[in-house]
Amino acid sequence: MIFDFYGYYIRDVHLVTFTSDFGLSDPYVGEVKGVILAIAPEARIIDVTHDIEPGNLLQASFALSGSFRYFTEGTLHLVIVDPGVGTGRDIVAVRTPRFTFVGPDNGVLWEAVQRDGPGEIFMLDTERLYAELQRRHSDNTVVRHILKNGTSATFHGRDLFAPLTAYLCAGHPLGAVADPREELVKLMLPVPVKTEQSVAGRVIYTDRFGNLVTNIPRDLINHNDEVFIKVKNELALVGRMSHTYAEVHQGEPLALIGSRNTLEIAVNRGSACEYYDASNGDEILILKGKRGQ
Amino acid sequence: MIFDFYGYYIRDVHLVTFTSDFGLSDPYVGEVKGVILAIAPEARIIDVTHDIEPGNLLQASFALSGSFRYFTEGTLHLVIVDPGVGTGRDIVAVRTPRFTFVGPDNGVLWEAVQRDGPGEIFMLDTERLYAELQRRHSDNTVVRHILKNGTSATFHGRDLFAPLTAYLCAGHPLGAVADPREELVKLMLPVPVKTEQSVAGRVIYTDRFGNLVTNIPRDLINHNDEVFIKVKNELALVGRMSHTYAEVHQGEPLALIGSRNTLEIAVNRGSACEYYDASNGDEILILKGKRGQ
Amino acid sequence: MIFDFYGYYIRDVHLVTFTSDFGLSDPYVGEVKGVILAIAPEARIIDVTHDIEPGNLLQASFALSGSFRYFTEGTLHLVIVDPGVGTGRDIVAVRTPRFTFVGPDNGVLWEAVQRDGPGEIFMLDTERLYAELQRRHSDNTVVRHILKNGTSATFHGRDLFAPLTAYLCAGHPLGAVADPREELVKLMLPVPVKTEQSVAGRVIYTDRFGNLVTNIPRDLINHNDEVFIKVKNELALVGRMSHTYAEVHQGEPLALIGSRNTLEIAVNRGSACEYYDASNGDEILILKGKRGQ
Repeated sequence: MIFDFYGYYIRDVHLVTFTSDFGLSDPYVGEVKGVILAIAPEARIIDVTHDIEPGNLLQASFALSGSFRYFTEGTLHLVIVDPGVGTGRDIVAVRTPRFTFVGPDNGVLWEAVQRDGPGEIFMLDTERLYAELQRRHSDNTVVRHILKNGTSATFHGRDLFAPLTAYLCAGHPLGAVADPREELVKLMLPVPVKTEQSVAGRVIYTDRFGNLVTNIPRDLINHNDEVFIKVKNELALVGRMSHTYAEVHQGEPLALIGSRNTLEIAVNRGSACEYYDASNGDEILILKGKRGQ
Repeated sequence: MIFDFYGYYIRDVHLVTFTSDFGLSDPYVGEVKGVILAIAPEARIIDVTHDIEPGNLLQASFALSGSFRYFTEGTLHLVIVDPGVGTGRDIVAVRTPRFTFVGPDNGVLWEAVQRDGPGEIFMLDTERLYAELQRRHSDNTVVRHILKNGTSATFHGRDLFAPLTAYLCAGHPLGAVADPREELVKLMLPVPVKTEQSVAGRVIYTDRFGNLVTNIPRDLINHNDEVFIKVKNELALVGRMSHTYAEVHQGEPLALIGSRNTLEIAVNRGSACEYYDASNGDEILILKGKRGQ
Repeated sequence: MIFDFYGYYIRDVHLVTFTSDFGLSDPYVGEVKGVILAIAPEARIIDVTHDIEPGNLLQASFALSGSFRYFTEGTLHLVIVDPGVGTGRDIVAVRTPRFTFVGPDNGVLWEAVQRDGPGEIFMLDTERLYAELQRRHSDNTVVRHILKNGTSATFHGRDLFAPLTAYLCAGHPLGAVADPREELVKLMLPVPVKTEQSVAGRVIYTDRFGNLVTNIPRDLINHNDEVFIKVKNELALVGRMSHTYAEVHQGEPLALIGSRNTLEIAVNRGSACEYYDASNGDEILILKGKRGQ
């Protein structure tokens, strides 16, 4: 455990995760971190990913909602995937039982907040945030630079999300810069459809290894169910459920429960994405096996 | 605020930004950080970008000069884009009013130093740096490994820039390892040309989103100016100035003031880079609008 | 130097390097870090690279064995390149004189351990690790989440490697969760073949700059040796040894001793990889020069 000079326990409160579609080639991620650390030097910022496809809210929602639980209680999760930057969309901070989420109110936070919810939702008031920064941090050259230039039309990450995140990391009161709200914009990940004989789901994420992550949760699948994937309008049989990649030969496909506790289709030491020429949105069908089969 | 064992306030002095053309696939960035942290364990290193095109000094200069102000006063900005590694080019450390810059003296630091200047320039004396490391850190296995192997011909980042950076982070005196100099090698970003009726500039950076960042500053543009981009030797009208992406339909181009306080050409939820098949160096023309138009 | 609340000197023990084939697009790297920091909040995690080709043990072994010495004594080196995840392969922690290495026992650690060895090898006992986590960290929501879900079949990085790494960072005894073993699985990097008149080696790594890193060490090469590379079954003369890139004209190839203290083939301000259409495994031949030539 590390305590700061005033005996403030810095373990929980100062961890920030950062998910965005900024990529790592441009200096944008670095600038956001620079602003956060200028105002809240104790913050520790962990990148979740910055390789969300530009503006892809579903992909960001999936990444965040699968990851947020693996960070210590008290972590602030910052998500900046914000195709509506500069429009009237709101910036929100949500306090759930274990975490704080900061992001644009475009649905990207909704799934994660649901899973940890219920949450108290606050809508940023830019003017009050800037007034608080002026009052508390006017000796800070970064703050002065931002206040002088005002909010850019295109980079709210640096000019609004980062200051708000840092303001919260520094332990300042959210109520002074934001107003309570009832609801978040909703963005639901697609839900599988269950019948007595089948479950119909979709590929909702493909990872670097070419694994096809689906939206079919563990509890809708039995070990002797048969798994199909729809390829060019024809159903291809993947097989019954496996426990590990190595249960099939190298280069062969299999179905198993992946690290999100959902059905995944993979190829042992290969790419299911390439094997099936599959991509996000492709249909997955489960035919329920009979007992004893 | 965090203080170390001796009551030394670590907020400002120990932040290091790191910009390079090393990429993130090879272990080079990690090794530079390893050496810095071996000598200066309090250092906090923030990546600006490591995806500068190999040897592209203009791109690195643009990234650095636009970003450095977003880091807290006292930050050391390390830039390693060094196509002349192993030649007679010097290694410099520059102390400006708010920052320290460390890099090769090939022009890459010039623009940023100008903007925060004037700066005191020091040229590294490798032998004295190694003697100081020997004297102060000879119990350190990383230092011993570097001193034993001597400077490699190809990786001054690890063998010289990192030790110098760490030496400064650790609070040791620059004068003991470097000599004052009058001037830096200059590398000016291209400057726009202004007439009474027009401003002629260039695209100087294209980002992940396909935004075309130009070198035309905010104060040379009025709201009713007309913005053109030269595509295959023909001028294409982008339009008059917008405030936000959303002022045009999805997929349509627009011109606005971007996060560097310069003219940017963008496509709402699309890529201006693809829309115009544009790239760095392309010409931009502003025709001054008449008042009241 | 920074000490924690109990006066524990955190410089050496809490540095973790992280090498994997996870890439940076998926949230996997972030989740591993989240778990480590939940259990060992003092840990400082430095990325070596996450861009190892999926399952490429030789590439990971090369990256690790060239880099590990550039981190301060006491660093824990975590390597997760694990194509056999979910099979019977063991998870090991190895204590060498200066470092701790954690990874799958598939050979990926062997070369580095050899170089710093001899090492004490321990094989993880998952049940005892989870029992220790339960006993020591049951107030931790991340630990509770992992213990509740159990080990996933596909992501031991998050569910086993990260908790083991954090357990060791937190200073807990390795013997309580792992058993001593005699030997590691071996994976030797290819070794050059020496005759009186020649040395025959191979390209074992190509970096972002297109440099061809070979397995021929400095002490097998003299300054007036002639260096050849085999291209499409014909030997191409690179030339005699150079000291720096700049000894040849721009765009011309050269041979020099690179940052791993081995022979590298490069092109001054260009890519040797493209110049020779070369890749890993390509043969390199050294013909010994006569003295005085």
